[in-house]
Amino acid sequence: MQHLPKSFFASNRTRVGQFIGEAGHVFLFGNRSGVRDDTDTDLEVRQEANFFYLTGVLDANYSAVITVPTGELTLIAPQMSPDDPIWYGALPSLAEVKEKHGAERVIEATAAPAFLGELKQSKIFVINEDFKRLAIAALPAAAAGEASIDTEKLMEALIESRMIKRPEEIAVLRRVNKISSDAFVLMMQEARNCRYEHELESIFMSYARRRGCRHMAYLPIVGAGNNGAVLHYMANNAPLKKTDLVLVDAGAELDLYASDITRCFPMSGTFDERQRTVYTIVLNAQKAVATMIRPGVDWTDCHLAAERVLAEGLLAANILRGSLEEILEKRAMSVFFPHGLGHFMGLAVHDVGGYPKGVERIQKPSLQYLRCRRVLQEGMVITNEPGIYFNEELVRRAKENAEVSALINWEEVEKYRGFGGVRIEDDIVVTADGCESLTTAPKEIEDIEKVMRS
Amino acid sequence: MQHLPKSFFASNRTRVGQFIGEAGHVFLFGNRSGVRDDTDTDLEVRQEANFFYLTGVLDANYSAVITVPTGELTLIAPQMSPDDPIWYGALPSLAEVKEKHGAERVIEATAAPAFLGELKQSKIFVINEDFKRLAIAALPAAAAGEASIDTEKLMEALIESRMIKRPEEIAVLRRVNKISSDAFVLMMQEARNCRYEHELESIFMSYARRRGCRHMAYLPIVGAGNNGAVLHYMANNAPLKKTDLVLVDAGAELDLYASDITRCFPMSGTFDERQRTVYTIVLNAQKAVATMIRPGVDWTDCHLAAERVLAEGLLAANILRGSLEEILEKRAMSVFFPHGLGHFMGLAVHDVGGYPKGVERIQKPSLQYLRCRRVLQEGMVITNEPGIYFNEELVRRAKENAEVSALINWEEVEKYRGFGGVRIEDDIVVTADGCESLTTAPKEIEDIEKVMRS
Repeated sequence: MQHLPKSFFASNRTRVGQFIGEAGHVFLFGNRSGVRDDTDTDLEVRQEANFFYLTGVLDANYSAVITVPTGELTLIAPQMSPDDPIWYGALPSLAEVKEKHGAERVIEATAAPAFLGELKQSKIFVINEDFKRLAIAALPAAAAGEASIDTEKLMEALIESRMIKRPEEIAVLRRVNKISSDAFVLMMQEARNCRYEHELESIFMSYARRRGCRHMAYLPIVGAGNNGAVLHYMANNAPLKKTDLVLVDAGAELDLYASDITRCFPMSGTFDERQRTVYTIVLNAQKAVATMIRPGVDWTDCHLAAERVLAEGLLAANILRGSLEEILEKRAMSVFFPHGLGHFMGLAVHDVGGYPKGVERIQKPSLQYLRCRRVLQEGMVITNEPGIYFNEELVRRAKENAEVSALINWEEVEKYRGFGGVRIEDDIVVTADGCESLTTAPKEIEDIEKVMRS
Repeated sequence: MQHLPKSFFASNRTRVGQFIGEAGHVFLFGNRSGVRDDTDTDLEVRQEANFFYLTGVLDANYSAVITVPTGELTLIAPQMSPDDPIWYGALPSLAEVKEKHGAERVIEATAAPAFLGELKQSKIFVINEDFKRLAIAALPAAAAGEASIDTEKLMEALIESRMIKRPEEIAVLRRVNKISSDAFVLMMQEARNCRYEHELESIFMSYARRRGCRHMAYLPIVGAGNNGAVLHYMANNAPLKKTDLVLVDAGAELDLYASDITRCFPMSGTFDERQRTVYTIVLNAQKAVATMIRPGVDWTDCHLAAERVLAEGLLAANILRGSLEEILEKRAMSVFFPHGLGHFMGLAVHDVGGYPKGVERIQKPSLQYLRCRRVLQEGMVITNEPGIYFNEELVRRAKENAEVSALINWEEVEKYRGFGGVRIEDDIVVTADGCESLTTAPKEIEDIEKVMRS
């Protein structure tokens, strides 16, 4: 149930080795199986993303060594007990593991210290300080003290490599996006039969699991009415009201690759005036960004462009007042659009590489939360997710800020009390001359209403 | 979404305090929120069972102190940041937390070291060595060295208390068992539309989630055909064949209380001869045990009684041969019934207390895996789960064991190649004069066939 060929992982090893640009050995430690607290209840294991990227191994308790720059792979298999075949069925032989993953060799855990000890004279590359501790523990005591372990270059190389998605990865991202998109359609179709937020959530998760997605890319947000304005809402246990707009932010995961989609729909099946007003503003902003995305564009500019379209819409809707330029300059938009426009997506929902070395977060409202400040390149995958929220805490703070407060039509804002928020989020691949959305879930008002009627 | 009253947790504190039988303070640390590997992807948090049992708090990042023997509760609330209301919505005040959980006081994390430092002269009770380390880290440096920290008595007291379920707990266990039982019915009804094991799994999990169960009590086992004989099978990704018998071992969790049910059903909707033969033997054994369960009975004897009924059935089915007594004495039953008959169930699926102090595991095939060797008492909750499996590794080993091999009719066993296994598992409350099953999922052959036709 894993769709990427072993040649993909082999070329990742070469790529990452080239980015490291120095001979040595990469030490990798896959995730370990674990139990819940002080019990024997197994926890679900999800492989560590970098380990998967460089080996293709999904099973728990493996370690690996990659020779740089040749990309030669040595897998260290978990120690099996003689009774394991009773409990877990026939286990693959070392030769089968070697063949499956295209490894140069597979050794048993008992043989690992001797094997690793031989490598002590070369430079050792690990992901970070935590993995350095694991590397030291894995080396024979005598070798541990002498080893030269670098904790920077490997992750930098992994970021360079993972940031640009290759065709095989885009194929998986497309596939999982389709599963999540279809799950959104099902949720919209069945919404009328749901009484609680978690019933919608269960429809999404069930469909994804049925299509083979064992994990969610992240914990879903299903926020009805006011909960839609709580940005990290995850309780998902409130009743659904006919008058509610529901915000659902959910994404299945396939082969460890994420999807990340947000849609909003009215529990009544038909957008009312307030819902239509806010939704249309957000959709316009999202579409405006989509026309901008192409290689060479700075993502920060996309964020600012989204703010501008959102501000224009809120001015037209009489929620903001004053001049557009003053609104933008005083950062009044951050009251209603407090988060960043989007983030890279791949083996993590918030994928690596958003900030190049030397580029810092902009310490201004909302911009401080922007997860990417890169100039876009072909093969990057990024979310486009503007939003407008009537967040109680932000509204309260805005009232206390004279400069910002003067730009808000409070009488109009009052009408949106309990409304919640709207976010529309698609997952976008940057192509050679523009971009392509992987997300097929309906987002036009008439399309959503049509699906909800069906 | 939590069904136990705060009076329940208050009386747990008193009970556990009485079992400790010595003045002092219990230090408890609730589970912490966490992220997936080196990312910002939140993981789902499930409260540590003992923390919940003594406080009723489900939210992450709390700590607690309980005064023994008075049972006075001090909660230490997580440190909030000023921006939390933006991301997480309005947070309860300390006064609201105090009221909700019936605490004597709730303090902020910043006030904890001073508060805890005052307690250093009393005995401090923690669950185990891991929690001792947390306690030392939580104490002010000066107090940490002087504190007298006991790592035994608290857990012993918790086991004494948790082992006997009270009416409030049995009500929750009944409720979650009904949800899981209903999920089994749905799975049986929809089995004909499923093509893979994980589709059945998704029906179960989706229904449970829809009914408000956020966690499974454990990772489900959905094993079709031969996979049903792999005792810890969890891949759940094989195709379903019309000729398969499917073994599903799954249980939802509610308010942290487990359910744990196993049912087997034929993908064709009708038990064929082999399926009917093995199923009937296992069902007879399960029913025989159910008539035995009452206060005063040693669970070890229940296991041995199950073995006897299973052996009688396999003799009648011509799978075993020779004398019943020789079969039992030579432990030939463990080839086909290699695990223990059942285990306590409560806040953990394999709940605490199975072995009283001084009672050891019996080092004989299958009996070594028995998770409980208690004399039953009213209020205990235990699973009754005999099974018969044609496990490839065990069959292979039996062939190599002359003594055991002579008791097996290999020609007949050959007919069951690829059959898999049957387990039937109910969750049982020991009552004053017998027992009651909490599990309502159908288990009679005609009832299962009827549900599968509907």
